[in-house]
This record gives sequence, structure tokens and C-alpha cells, in this order.
Amino acid sequence: MSNAKAVEVYDASNICPDDLPWIPYFGVAHFKLLKANPVTGQTITLLKVPAGTQLPTHFHPGTVIVYTVKGSWRYMENDWVSKAGDVVYEPAGSKHTPESVGDEEVITLNIVEATLDYLNENGEIIARDNWESFLQKYHDHCAAEGISPIDVTKF
Amino acid sequence: MSNAKAVEVYDASNICPDDLPWIPYFGVAHFKLLKANPVTGQTITLLKVPAGTQLPTHFHPGTVIVYTVKGSWRYMENDWVSKAGDVVYEPAGSKHTPESVGDEEVITLNIVEATLDYLNENGEIIARDNWESFLQKYHDHCAAEGISPIDVTKF
Amino acid sequence: MSNAKAVEVYDASNICPDDLPWIPYFGVAHFKLLKANPVTGQTITLLKVPAGTQLPTHFHPGTVIVYTVKGSWRYMENDWVSKAGDVVYEPAGSKHTPESVGDEEVITLNIVEATLDYLNENGEIIARDNWESFLQKYHDHCAAEGISPIDVTKF
Amino acid sequence: MSNAKAVEVYDASNICPDDLPWIPYFGVAHFKLLKANPVTGQTITLLKVPAGTQLPTHFHPGTVIVYTVKGSWRYMENDWVSKAGDVVYEPAGSKHTPESVGDEEVITLNIVEATLDYLNENGEIIARDNWESFLQKYHDHCAAEGISPIDVTKF
Repeated sequence: MSNAKAVEVYDASNICPDDLPWIPYFGVAHFKLLKANPVTGQTITLLKVPAGTQLPTHFHPGTVIVYTVKGSWRYMENDWVSKAGDVVYEPAGSKHTPESVGDEEVITLNIVEATLDYLNENGEIIARDNWESFLQKYHDHCAAEGISPIDVTKF
Repeated sequence: MSNAKAVEVYDASNICPDDLPWIPYFGVAHFKLLKANPVTGQTITLLKVPAGTQLPTHFHPGTVIVYTVKGSWRYMENDWVSKAGDVVYEPAGSKHTPESVGDEEVITLNIVEATLDYLNENGEIIARDNWESFLQKYHDHCAAEGISPIDVTKF
Repeated sequence: MSNAKAVEVYDASNICPDDLPWIPYFGVAHFKLLKANPVTGQTITLLKVPAGTQLPTHFHPGTVIVYTVKGSWRYMENDWVSKAGDVVYEPAGSKHTPESVGDEEVITLNIVEATLDYLNENGEIIARDNWESFLQKYHDHCAAEGISPIDVTKF
Repeated sequence: MSNAKAVEVYDASNICPDDLPWIPYFGVAHFKLLKANPVTGQTITLLKVPAGTQLPTHFHPGTVIVYTVKGSWRYMENDWVSKAGDVVYEPAGSKHTPESVGDEEVITLNIVEATLDYLNENGEIIARDNWESFLQKYHDHCAAEGISPIDVTKF
């Protein structure tokens, strides 16, 4: 009678970042895509940035939670420095320019609800990343490196 | 090389409630399950309640948005009445007892983020509905009525 | 000892759209801002569009839920028509061009998680609306019309 | 003319856990409340559990994201172990019994959308924690210890 999917509850799963490759990002930085939700647009990523690096100014239409895993960083627009173990909460609609602080490489865990919209000096959007573009970069990287991608959209 | 799902963007879809059955709920009421997200737990339902009806007191761990499609209703704990065309916003952690107001049947559209936890007089949880139980009730109803269920968990 | 806010639970509240003005939007359309969450970026709006009207192509970084209150409409990119009583679910990252269908004015209720990004023919973002710009338009309209605005960011 | 709040955009802020106290939890464990959103119910907490400890079985009506900061742990119901640097994603409606693995203390960062509902052997809910109860425990702890609480609900 029924050809629809039966009621199936998804279970908690553990993501081990060691199983996922670092993917070049903006030349000097790298990211790992840990999870992407194609329905809500949420992404969970790791970002690795060398000491002495500034990343492009960007805008977030949705919320962002950042956990600083290693090193120290700040937004040029704010007066705080986030160091290893700190958590940054970004309400929807925030805009900022990240830079690493100090001599250590920076690694952050980022839970992003929508997109990162990269802006030029006039505030115009010149590039954008979201679950789809991160996933495409991951697949492209795997194809180029001969790696079998994990399905990070699976729950 | 790759055995993982390619990058696939889900598109907007229209849900026509006429395609879905009214399912008995608490004897006198009925609901239609329009959409259920097994990852986030969000459900979109219609609820139909006869005039002169009070539903059990319940608690919501997450947020709720209600659009009143038809009739008027209120929570016994609040001093407002929601009438057709109004929107009710319920922050996470709200608790209340709904009842229909006036002589007209009430229909509401409900966007619920987590569960409805039904409480006894001592505030103890005696029953709970969420995406999973609503979906089970929908499948059970379809099986009993000989209806082929639609996959309301598909995006 | 404590100078921080005590634990305070927000209660469910009813929003009556009759208490809020229609604000001109893209010349021919109008919107009402019912609720805006400055932390998550979620907005709840009503949109009113005359028969025979096409609105600009736009992209949504986050999810959208639309309830069709009156009339019929479609996205030019999709093969369905949404009529009064239907619900449209838009996963994050959807892009489309709305137009009213038939001879009747269209009114929709829209629950938007992030922004609407209006695109030109090359897919470049030329304008954007979110909780902040809708709220600014509401305040500007109130100032121009001599209306006292309601605080739609209050929960 | 206007007595409503002007349009005000919240900015990103950094939370330094060193500024917040460890609060006793289930006797042997401790938590820090880093952020609580009284509208959405989202909480961000740190949880510290000694080696060789099992915590009570609980159910989550909403989603949970866990980042393992230190040590290793597992759910007795699952076949994976989460170690420092791993991320656990829990879809809405998951149920499990956490225990620390190995000889090291465990610290996790937890982003929880709704509640933790503690269950007895019959699956009945016997206790519950959410933004409100965590916030109350934080304020109670501050009062008992003579600490001035920070407003963790502020964005």
C-alpha cells in the first residue's frame, strides 16, 4: 500500500576531522567541511589560517558560532581577541574582517547558518560561500587529489 | 572515484493540504502533517478544533509560530484572543492550554521546532508529540484507511 | 550582588496584522513586518501583490516558509502554482522569480530565516532585504506617515 | 513620535569561558553556561566529566552539536568514540547515555537547541534542563558563591 519512506529516526554520529582533507581557501588558508545540511543551509567547518594573515571582509545573513581551537584572532571591526578555548557568537547580519593575532597558526570550528558574502570596498558582494559551494569545493578537491569523498550531507 | 552523492540543490516545493488527510487527534480535534524534518525536528501542521473545545495543557521546548486560518482561539494563561489572520509567536519554553473561542471551528497552521509535551496537573509530562510521532500517526492513519502516504519528509 | 537580568521567560504573544501598516515595496507591492528577530535574523512578513505582477528574481541564503493567504502565485522557475491555503517550503539556497497568477490580488505570509538577495540578469546581487532593512523601511514609513511604530523585535 | 526601539544591529562578541564559573551538575560533573537565548531556547555550554563516569540517559527534542575539547567519550547506545577534536551531530529526537572513555577527564562544548530530558528506566521524563534551568542554576551558584553573574542572555 505504502511506497513512502517508513518512519526512520536518525541517530547521533561522530565526525572525525582526521578523515577529511584540508582544502585550500583564499590561497593561504584551508578549510575542512565536516557537515552540510542542504535543507537548512547549515555548515560545520574547520578553518586554518597562518599567523599574520588577514582574510577578506564578509557579511553573514544568518548566525555564526565560532569555537577557537588553536591560536588567537580578531575582527578588525571589534575590540576583542578570541583565543584558544573562546567562543564567538555572531548575530545575523554581522560584517567583519578576520585576522590572525600573534605568532601561532589559527584553527577555528565554525557553525554557519546561511552564507559568507565577500564584499569589496564599496560593500558590494563579489563572492559567496555556502553549503553548496563548500561542498562543490570539497568534491572538486577530492576529484583532483584522487580522494573518495565522504557524504557530509548525510545525517 | 566518488561514491558519495553529488552536489544537489533542493528546490522550493508547494504543499497542497487537500492532498493530505485529516487525522484524528485527542478525540475531537484533527491534524494534517504537511512537512516533517527528521534532522531538525521541525514540523508544519494544520490543526482543526471544533468550537467550544479545550485541548490539554502542554509545554514547548522549542519555538512555535501559529497562523490562525479560521475562527478564534486563546490560551487560558494569556489575555489575548487570536483570530483568523493573526500570528502567534511562542518563544522556547512556553506552556499553555489552548481553547477555541466563539461559535466557529478553529483551523491553525503550526510551525513547531521540537515537541509538544503534554502535562498533567502536577506538571509531569504524560505524552509527547514530535515529527516522529506525527509521522507515525500519519502512516498509521493511511494504513487504516487504505491511503497511500505522501513522503512529507522529502525536501 | 547581582546586576545581571534575572531569569525571565518570554510568553506567547499574538500579532494582529490590522495593527500594522502596509509598506510600499517595489512600487506595486506592499509588505507588513509582523516580527523581526535581530539575533537569528528571522522575519515574519505579509506580502501583498496585485494580479498580473512579476517581482524581481531573488536568492535566499536561508530557508523560507510561505503560506498563501489569498490568490494564486508561482515561481517562473517551477511547475507548480500555490493557491490560497497552500504552503511552500524553500530549502536554503533557492533562487526564483515570483509572479501572481489569475485575476486576484495575492497575499502571502512569509517566514524567512536570513535575507532576500535581489539579482540582476548576470546573477549578481543588486539589492538585499533582511530583518534590518525591513525594520528600517517600517520605521521610515511610520516617520513619513506620522504613525507610532510598534516594537516588532520584542518577544 | 516613535517610542519603539530604533533599528540596532547586534555585533559579534567573544565569550571567554575563564570568566565563567564551573557549576556542579549531577554531583560529579560540572557545566559552564556560555550563552542562552530565551527566544529560541538555544544554549551553549561546556560540560566537564571525570574519567570513569556515566551520566543519565536523556532525550533531545531538538538538535545538538558537540565538540570534544578534551578526553574521549561515547554514548552507550552507539558504536563510536568521540575524542578530542571530533564533532558529534545529533538530529532532533535522539536518546542516549553518555560515558567518559579512558583515563582522562572529558570536556565538551555543547550547542543545544531545546532541552535535555532525563529519563527513568521506563522512558518517563524525570527531569529536564533547558536555557531557563541552566540560567537559574548559574544564578543560584553565583548567589551561593558571592559571584556577580554575567548576563549570558545578552547578544
